[in-house]
Amino acid sequence: MSDKKKVILDCDPGHDDAFGIMLAVQHLDVLGLTTIGGNSPLENVTTNALKVLEVLGAADDIGVYPGHSCPMVAPLVTAPQFHGETGMDGPVLPDPVHAPQPKHAVDFIVETVMSTDDVTLIATGPLTNIAAAINREPRIVERVKELCIMGGSVTYGNWTPAAEFNIFVDPEAASRVFNSGMHVKMTGINLTRQCNLTGEHVAEFRRIGTKAALLAADLTDFFIGTCAEESELTGATMHDACAVAWIVKPELIKSVPMHIDIELDGRLTRGMTVCDYRHLRGEAPEVDLERTPTMDFRGEKPNAEAALELDFPGFVELLNTTLERYD
Amino acid sequence: MSDKKKVILDCDPGHDDAFGIMLAVQHLDVLGLTTIGGNSPLENVTTNALKVLEVLGAADDIGVYPGHSCPMVAPLVTAPQFHGETGMDGPVLPDPVHAPQPKHAVDFIVETVMSTDDVTLIATGPLTNIAAAINREPRIVERVKELCIMGGSVTYGNWTPAAEFNIFVDPEAASRVFNSGMHVKMTGINLTRQCNLTGEHVAEFRRIGTKAALLAADLTDFFIGTCAEESELTGATMHDACAVAWIVKPELIKSVPMHIDIELDGRLTRGMTVCDYRHLRGEAPEVDLERTPTMDFRGEKPNAEAALELDFPGFVELLNTTLERYD
Amino acid sequence: MSDKKKVILDCDPGHDDAFGIMLAVQHLDVLGLTTIGGNSPLENVTTNALKVLEVLGAADDIGVYPGHSCPMVAPLVTAPQFHGETGMDGPVLPDPVHAPQPKHAVDFIVETVMSTDDVTLIATGPLTNIAAAINREPRIVERVKELCIMGGSVTYGNWTPAAEFNIFVDPEAASRVFNSGMHVKMTGINLTRQCNLTGEHVAEFRRIGTKAALLAADLTDFFIGTCAEESELTGATMHDACAVAWIVKPELIKSVPMHIDIELDGRLTRGMTVCDYRHLRGEAPEVDLERTPTMDFRGEKPNAEAALELDFPGFVELLNTTLERYD
Amino acid sequence: MSDKKKVILDCDPGHDDAFGIMLAVQHLDVLGLTTIGGNSPLENVTTNALKVLEVLGAADDIGVYPGHSCPMVAPLVTAPQFHGETGMDGPVLPDPVHAPQPKHAVDFIVETVMSTDDVTLIATGPLTNIAAAINREPRIVERVKELCIMGGSVTYGNWTPAAEFNIFVDPEAASRVFNSGMHVKMTGINLTRQCNLTGEHVAEFRRIGTKAALLAADLTDFFIGTCAEESELTGATMHDACAVAWIVKPELIKSVPMHIDIELDGRLTRGMTVCDYRHLRGEAPEVDLERTPTMDFRGEKPNAEAALELDFPGFVELLNTTLERYD
Repeated sequence: MSDKKKVILDCDPGHDDAFGIMLAVQHLDVLGLTTIGGNSPLENVTTNALKVLEVLGAADDIGVYPGHSCPMVAPLVTAPQFHGETGMDGPVLPDPVHAPQPKHAVDFIVETVMSTDDVTLIATGPLTNIAAAINREPRIVERVKELCIMGGSVTYGNWTPAAEFNIFVDPEAASRVFNSGMHVKMTGINLTRQCNLTGEHVAEFRRIGTKAALLAADLTDFFIGTCAEESELTGATMHDACAVAWIVKPELIKSVPMHIDIELDGRLTRGMTVCDYRHLRGEAPEVDLERTPTMDFRGEKPNAEAALELDFPGFVELLNTTLERYD
Repeated sequence: MSDKKKVILDCDPGHDDAFGIMLAVQHLDVLGLTTIGGNSPLENVTTNALKVLEVLGAADDIGVYPGHSCPMVAPLVTAPQFHGETGMDGPVLPDPVHAPQPKHAVDFIVETVMSTDDVTLIATGPLTNIAAAINREPRIVERVKELCIMGGSVTYGNWTPAAEFNIFVDPEAASRVFNSGMHVKMTGINLTRQCNLTGEHVAEFRRIGTKAALLAADLTDFFIGTCAEESELTGATMHDACAVAWIVKPELIKSVPMHIDIELDGRLTRGMTVCDYRHLRGEAPEVDLERTPTMDFRGEKPNAEAALELDFPGFVELLNTTLERYD
Repeated sequence: MSDKKKVILDCDPGHDDAFGIMLAVQHLDVLGLTTIGGNSPLENVTTNALKVLEVLGAADDIGVYPGHSCPMVAPLVTAPQFHGETGMDGPVLPDPVHAPQPKHAVDFIVETVMSTDDVTLIATGPLTNIAAAINREPRIVERVKELCIMGGSVTYGNWTPAAEFNIFVDPEAASRVFNSGMHVKMTGINLTRQCNLTGEHVAEFRRIGTKAALLAADLTDFFIGTCAEESELTGATMHDACAVAWIVKPELIKSVPMHIDIELDGRLTRGMTVCDYRHLRGEAPEVDLERTPTMDFRGEKPNAEAALELDFPGFVELLNTTLERYD
Repeated sequence: MSDKKKVILDCDPGHDDAFGIMLAVQHLDVLGLTTIGGNSPLENVTTNALKVLEVLGAADDIGVYPGHSCPMVAPLVTAPQFHGETGMDGPVLPDPVHAPQPKHAVDFIVETVMSTDDVTLIATGPLTNIAAAINREPRIVERVKELCIMGGSVTYGNWTPAAEFNIFVDPEAASRVFNSGMHVKMTGINLTRQCNLTGEHVAEFRRIGTKAALLAADLTDFFIGTCAEESELTGATMHDACAVAWIVKPELIKSVPMHIDIELDGRLTRGMTVCDYRHLRGEAPEVDLERTPTMDFRGEKPNAEAALELDFPGFVELLNTTLERYD
């Protein structure tokens, strides 16, 4: 019996999701991989998940369970400008030989969590599947060990000035999740943008040379290109990999407890993760005081844990080591 | 004829407003002082303005024009927990011998700006008077040199997790102002919290010993107390003084152009200054990149200039020098 | 093989839901009855549904499938002031001997609609189950014959000035449904308040004297009492029965096509069914012109059919005939 | 000394405003006429007001005071599709020989109300001037006799499904007014659409043949045309005249007390006058019970009086008599 942490990975690969899968397969006991329409439509991300698992040699052991194709209430928004038409453009991979599982992602999550102790959920796409699972079986809130998401931000948004993409795509689902009582670990873009892979990292991947490492290199090359074109960034931000890395190696990330809620209404702020940091003053020296105001009050009781600082060299070392271990 | 900058100071004293008045009287050509209900009701802040001017020996030269007693649409919120029942508790000052001017603040602003070139408006309370003046005479938008406000935030709020007090009190007025076409310089609490006076500064004020300096000492002592009690802060944040200091000595503050709009609707974010920093990447090295996300786009055209960094030692030196010059 | 219309009845009994069940069991081919937390928590309404079916002698033939216990995003609101603590106070009924089905309501809806042609959905509670079914299997939108709901209003609300209870409880679900492309027939409270049972109707039920009629009498007695106490009404409004009656005997209701959307944001209007009647002028003589304004435009394309006028004597006759047919 | 009611008429002529002016000049003691940007920009409506007064021979006695050119917060919306480019297309009138007064409308309202007892305000455009006057001098709330507006609706909107034009143009001003404590009489479009002038009325105006009557005929002819084109209506709705008629001859209108508030936030309902009719049941037999729901509660305390029914023949008689009295 594995002493690895048991996880379900809910994702929408996506270049950075693929890195999350690479970390998860090697270091965690992945009970299943569930997919959600987000970076690209559901069919694409499901196919991409299968392709990645096949490259990693894990497709026989880990099932892919397709979930919701659309947000709970809002219309679907995707991000082809960053991930290409397939949702994972760049690497040329054969069509998958494995088929998706017939069970719906939400059923898989509910049944697995209700029958298995200490399951950690990792969600790196819109939170539609997680919210639907909570609505379907509210007892999973108490049954899961924790939920670690990539999404939101302690500071700014990216899709709008105030909102990050994953939360913006399905704010109602995010609201349901953050208000459910489930303990949420949030790797927002304030954290993930510290995880920026550049040409030198790609060179190292190619030197490592495993099939996984070459996939990583091709994914990063493409993603560097679109990030540069769309955002004038130098480097590819591996958002989703951070959420997985936090579970794999918790010491890579510094975090603080926070109360976080989702703005559903604003004309300018819909989809914002509104962070109440006001309880932190004086109690959390690791919080950058430059970023907290003075005339504050004591805030609401934390319902979440917000990632603030990434040990990026540590992350890169973990990633390289992981890529070496494939093959 | 003075070569000082011509200003109208719209304020709601207020401990930190008083410091703004001290800086303005000494370094700027103050055409008039207009008052607005905010930190405390209108009658209080008008009386406080007169008292401060009388201590500074400026009440014969500078008229105080009372403005709006309430926000444009929202009900009035005040901050007695920080400023006491009078709005400027702490120093014991005689009742003012000067009376407020009979002219309404809005008329004073409109008439002065229409008849005088290159007037700078400084607003350190809710923006009700400024918005009403713009509504009354839209041509002032083109006539004023600029508007420098204390209010809002590039990062967090203080009155709510997302909103700063001055903007929260009258979001509709703020929306009117930021969308008017008037160029706004914003010293938000992300900046002003860098302006934190503590016991050692009070000791220096007492050593300087002018009437103005002793007033500054008494104000700071009281404000340190309420800031500690309400916010667990060590020190008194001199928010409003920063907006005046920016006009007095622009090199004290580093800023960047930004597009800023006001959220009027959100359940959680009403009164937030939503800052679109997305045009900044790569063009504004002074912007802390840790605070900006990666997957961004080009943002909207800037309508404002947001203060980011204060030269606090420079500010203290300016303040001490100023206090010495009174008497 | 039955030539009755095939329906699934999604409900939260509920006094007026019980009348809907009575009509449906006798006149429609009820494929199943699904329950939803609304008037009372899920356990209560599920038990009530079983009790009613047992009184009607239909519990062996019609399964009860429990659905969602809570709205999609909002916290649950119930209406004990109208329906009592059990959700169907008044009649004294034995505990049900039948158990609910193990299948979830949403799965039952999806599987039935995907495998059976021409299913009509009737929903007389919050639209949570229907929205979840659409999210789970979007193809049901094209598969169902139509959806007939009790909820919303062409004019005023009841729970708030603008919102009716069923929609107010889960506005996000209602928004999902009305924007899904599924054809919706809406019996709002503008219609259902024309369906007001009083003491004389109760007397007739007791005269009819079947077990179903006596249940109807007891339900109406209790409901008259709470409607009087809470709303100063004389009579019990049989909201939910109207939606079923429309399917049983379409000629009882006059309706018009309309575009209807759900307000999710308003401070005062959250949960309102916003009806765009503007295309109607001059084309729908049955629309009361007194209720439509003059300076209008052509509105949006209808996505729904709004009930406007009930043939109440016809309804009462249908009801009495139905009650007689039990036993 | 006149025993006529003293009024200030705040308007944006506008075809239907012109009818309001005709009624007011003949039957009320018009202290002044203030203008507001609405149906057309401020310059146009001010010119139109002068032109109408000159036709009526009243321009020497009644000053025209221009007010705000824009809403308090929202951008200006006008209605050229109904009123033409000049805001009062149709009649050919000479340029006015009188000039507008130099005093601002808001100052005129405040000074007049503070110095004169029992002034009634009649407002037939957006409520910007009235709100600004309240903000400028809150004591006018207690000083005025009452405020009678054309705007809003007890039922539907016209500019959007939920909002009427005058309120939609400046919802923030309307919110300020309805929440000020000032007693508001509201002639919404539910009432004014009962005031529909057609060709037969035009024929009667031409038969009467006074200059005022011929102006009325030309205005109605044009307005019938645009109402038909834009709204497929037969007839011209004399919205604004109803508000004046209510003050001239109160028995023409049946009304009920109501609590009315303004929705500022909704995606679909911004600018709606949300009417809480829930206190009315059983106490106001004149309320059409068909239009009120059953499952209601007791509502909030009335802050307004909503017009429900117009005696249209009585209105026409008043109008014809009035037109005859001009020479």
